[in-house]
Amino acid sequence: MSFNVYLSGEIHTDWREEIQRGAEAAGLDVVFTAPVTDHPASDAAGDYLGETTPGFWRDHQSSKINAIRTRTLIEKADFVVVRFGDKYKQWNAAFDAGYCSALGKPYVTLHDEDIVHPLKEVDADAQGWCKTTDQVVETLRYVLQP
Amino acid sequence: MSFNVYLSGEIHTDWREEIQRGAEAAGLDVVFTAPVTDHPASDAAGDYLGETTPGFWRDHQSSKINAIRTRTLIEKADFVVVRFGDKYKQWNAAFDAGYCSALGKPYVTLHDEDIVHPLKEVDADAQGWCKTTDQVVETLRYVLQP
Amino acid sequence: MSFNVYLSGEIHTDWREEIQRGAEAAGLDVVFTAPVTDHPASDAAGDYLGETTPGFWRDHQSSKINAIRTRTLIEKADFVVVRFGDKYKQWNAAFDAGYCSALGKPYVTLHDEDIVHPLKEVDADAQGWCKTTDQVVETLRYVLQP
Amino acid sequence: MSFNVYLSGEIHTDWREEIQRGAEAAGLDVVFTAPVTDHPASDAAGDYLGETTPGFWRDHQSSKINAIRTRTLIEKADFVVVRFGDKYKQWNAAFDAGYCSALGKPYVTLHDEDIVHPLKEVDADAQGWCKTTDQVVETLRYVLQP
Amino acid sequence: MSFNVYLSGEIHTDWREEIQRGAEAAGLDVVFTAPVTDHPASDAAGDYLGETTPGFWRDHQSSKINAIRTRTLIEKADFVVVRFGDKYKQWNAAFDAGYCSALGKPYVTLHDEDIVHPLKEVDADAQGWCKTTDQVVETLRYVLQP
Amino acid sequence: MSFNVYLSGEIHTDWREEIQRGAEAAGLDVVFTAPVTDHPASDAAGDYLGETTPGFWRDHQSSKINAIRTRTLIEKADFVVVRFGDKYKQWNAAFDAGYCSALGKPYVTLHDEDIVHPLKEVDADAQGWCKTTDQVVETLRYVLQP
Amino acid sequence: MSFNVYLSGEIHTDWREEIQRGAEAAGLDVVFTAPVTDHPASDAAGDYLGETTPGFWRDHQSSKINAIRTRTLIEKADFVVVRFGDKYKQWNAAFDAGYCSALGKPYVTLHDEDIVHPLKEVDADAQGWCKTTDQVVETLRYVLQP
Amino acid sequence: MSFNVYLSGEIHTDWREEIQRGAEAAGLDVVFTAPVTDHPASDAAGDYLGETTPGFWRDHQSSKINAIRTRTLIEKADFVVVRFGDKYKQWNAAFDAGYCSALGKPYVTLHDEDIVHPLKEVDADAQGWCKTTDQVVETLRYVLQP
Repeated sequence: MSFNVYLSGEIHTDWREEIQRGAEAAGLDVVFTAPVTDHPASDAAGDYLGETTPGFWRDHQSSKINAIRTRTLIEKADFVVVRFGDKYKQWNAAFDAGYCSALGKPYVTLHDEDIVHPLKEVDADAQGWCKTTDQVVETLRYVLQP
Repeated sequence: MSFNVYLSGEIHTDWREEIQRGAEAAGLDVVFTAPVTDHPASDAAGDYLGETTPGFWRDHQSSKINAIRTRTLIEKADFVVVRFGDKYKQWNAAFDAGYCSALGKPYVTLHDEDIVHPLKEVDADAQGWCKTTDQVVETLRYVLQP
Repeated sequence: MSFNVYLSGEIHTDWREEIQRGAEAAGLDVVFTAPVTDHPASDAAGDYLGETTPGFWRDHQSSKINAIRTRTLIEKADFVVVRFGDKYKQWNAAFDAGYCSALGKPYVTLHDEDIVHPLKEVDADAQGWCKTTDQVVETLRYVLQP
Repeated sequence: MSFNVYLSGEIHTDWREEIQRGAEAAGLDVVFTAPVTDHPASDAAGDYLGETTPGFWRDHQSSKINAIRTRTLIEKADFVVVRFGDKYKQWNAAFDAGYCSALGKPYVTLHDEDIVHPLKEVDADAQGWCKTTDQVVETLRYVLQP
Repeated sequence: MSFNVYLSGEIHTDWREEIQRGAEAAGLDVVFTAPVTDHPASDAAGDYLGETTPGFWRDHQSSKINAIRTRTLIEKADFVVVRFGDKYKQWNAAFDAGYCSALGKPYVTLHDEDIVHPLKEVDADAQGWCKTTDQVVETLRYVLQP
Repeated sequence: MSFNVYLSGEIHTDWREEIQRGAEAAGLDVVFTAPVTDHPASDAAGDYLGETTPGFWRDHQSSKINAIRTRTLIEKADFVVVRFGDKYKQWNAAFDAGYCSALGKPYVTLHDEDIVHPLKEVDADAQGWCKTTDQVVETLRYVLQP
Repeated sequence: MSFNVYLSGEIHTDWREEIQRGAEAAGLDVVFTAPVTDHPASDAAGDYLGETTPGFWRDHQSSKINAIRTRTLIEKADFVVVRFGDKYKQWNAAFDAGYCSALGKPYVTLHDEDIVHPLKEVDADAQGWCKTTDQVVETLRYVLQP
Repeated sequence: MSFNVYLSGEIHTDWREEIQRGAEAAGLDVVFTAPVTDHPASDAAGDYLGETTPGFWRDHQSSKINAIRTRTLIEKADFVVVRFGDKYKQWNAAFDAGYCSALGKPYVTLHDEDIVHPLKEVDADAQGWCKTTDQVVETLRYVLQP
């Protein structure tokens, strides 16, 4: 069995690499995809389309370009991992979870225990709550066993 | 023209009442719906189903009961307003926005200027960004004109 | 708020009447629907279409007539209650739950504690597990509050 | 012609192996998939996510992990075989049949004659009722002929 | 319970009136809809749009106007009756049945025994085969009982 | 029979009023809806949300507000009339036609003969091509006959 | 470009082979699929499942087995050719056309001029009407040009 | 990452080749598809099906043949570029954009600044507005980065 897995959310730690290394070590047949994780590049994603006023419209132009990639990858994924880190609001991660929920696409969340309460609606539609990247790898190992 | 409008998000200020009063003053034919906005009641929504360990499972049980109401009301709505306030993470609001996006349901966001950047993905799929409840009322007035 | 609620499953006890009385006592705006609950009538549902060999084909002919009612009512429902009783296999109740799950339609289960384990997949996609009809009424009261 | 076939239901006899051997002997181009069929492993599927109270919540956590696999495989399947054995309630098999029905995905049932009556609703939407694994293989051979 | 029922197919006998009279006599809450059953008017449905060459293009222009009505009514119906008479090919009735099948909309067929074999694929997805209009009325009476 | 009809396209002539008068004269049970047809108001639809640079972003902000109304009305319509006039490009009308086509929603076009060729793809999925508002009224009269 | 083409309808002449030879001669990258075209085998498709009374139930059992193949192949096809011959009613061909229509799947019809009128509803949703197998091949050649 | 990109719209300049050369130079893994861009061939696409009256019906017959290709390619595309040139009305391009919008398929527009205003509704649902083919290539390069 093979799976296409989209890794949504936090871009400031190396959680994606940890999961990928773990999946590789376990010999799993998984293709991982992700948003553009270079923060400045992502913020500037639409700048080549022309100057805009800083703030809302620059963000708007860039976010719509980023969405070409993210929406398509989520729709192609068999499974999504949604990561909430310590810093930043990461509303985009919660947005992706809601998007998955409406599509009926299975996802797990990955976050620490101290944010269980504010994430309760996001967790309610998830297939599971992982606290560590090892648990995500274990999820994949279990689900993809022959 | 009449519209069914779901008011998603922040539950600690009276923004819903402001919009409802404004719509009434403008004579608009709108039915407003909302999640249960009594915070302790919402957190305890599933307690009558049986004791659970505090934390994740209590939240889980309650959130799934709340979702019976919220998912149904969003799917019945013609239009959704998603409010992000000053306090709390409000990942549930972002989740609702993502849910609307996947359904192709139109929504506007309602938030202050200082959180434009972290909300850029949520705003990217919105039909507009309102900074005040008056702007939400004006949106409804414009959209629902005869 | 009003809701259209389908009551699926067991037909040999008066659980439907208990819920309906409870909802009425609570003053809830609910329309309840259900399959034909007269067991012999349901088994004979297709007999007027012509004689068949007893067994599979008679059952087949009747079940397809019953499905005109049940599938339509489930699709029109905002919410479904799926009841598993003490007797009989009630595979039709589990079938209805799977049908709801694929449609993304919210449901709760209603069953005793001693069948939690064999019902775990059915409960996994439910919004909640009720042990009593009072808990179902409380679910409706909570969800439908103004 | 090739087909992707999901084998749902009973996990205590070797019916899946019989079908796979038969299909291989007939030279059919079929990829078979299935849930995790190791019963204790399946019951413990979510234990690595953290301790829960025994009973409902442990089952809940495990079933949701199992559903990542089963829902995805059913949605990818061209055809589903739903097996009801002599023992156990197998509500999960009926749940899968209802899920297929709502998706319009073709399935056959595989069960003995003595449970025709309680399975009548599940059989009503099936493309056929097989009594033996040979009949399932014959179904595949017929459907997949050049 | 009320139902919206579309009566598809043969337009040269009074089977629709028989069903409507029967439903009225039984006190059923049914709204019946149908295609335009005036044959010359139906053939000329698009003539006001401009002259066409007789044959294919005149038929094409008229059929597309008729489809505005028929497709919309089928999609709004809860239930469809598809009638095949003695005369004419009635491919449009079979077309409507296939349309219902793809939408998952329940239908019964109404035809004599001598055309069972050529209608086998159309009957295979039907919820039942009626031989008389009385059987259609009985279907409605059974399905719509309180 | 009653119909909900959306009148898309040209806003500089009184074709909508002609159709509405004709439908009223014919005693038809039709609810007509339309975009905001006050051109300056439509161009300024989003100005209350805040200043933007003139040109693309002002247009963008206004068009997204207008789309709250237009997309919702098209999705609620049973039938759409798409009007192409003599002046202006009216790409929005062609856009609405493509939107209807993807939804499987029936529409007719209303335009003069001299633009048949450039509109051939838009006409190809239409149920008919009307040259006059009288023909639109006749379409409604025919389709909605008892 | 490559296409997956389903050839629906008449099974008593060699029109499928003519199209396949023509496509091969034109060097087109097409995979053709079809129902089981051996008439007695198709009528007996379900006989291995057990004896039934001759007539309706034997036909029913066989047609549902055949539908496992036909429905799946139609849903996988990019394009469908629906053939109506001189003999037999071929309601199954019209059924397949209606099924394609509801799915929005493009099809052409293939039939002689003398049945244009009774096929007008089936032709109305087709992308074209072919009178010869050469015209079907030409359709494929044109559509699949680089 | 690889993408399937449909290039919709103008057929009188070499904008498609510019994009393809740019994507190749950037080493991008993209499969480009397009309508038939030979104008006389496209206008004559249905002529082999038989003579028609010049004008509407010849255009109709040809457009429906062209739509077999264009609708299928749009539905298979991950991403669509919609080009509006200086000449011609290009309602077909706007139609394709509306079709993408209803499907939730991401697209960018490619057009000069002087037609921003009449294209405002088409741009409102686009992920971005490109003024040059280089900007389209940059969009692909950014979106498809590893």
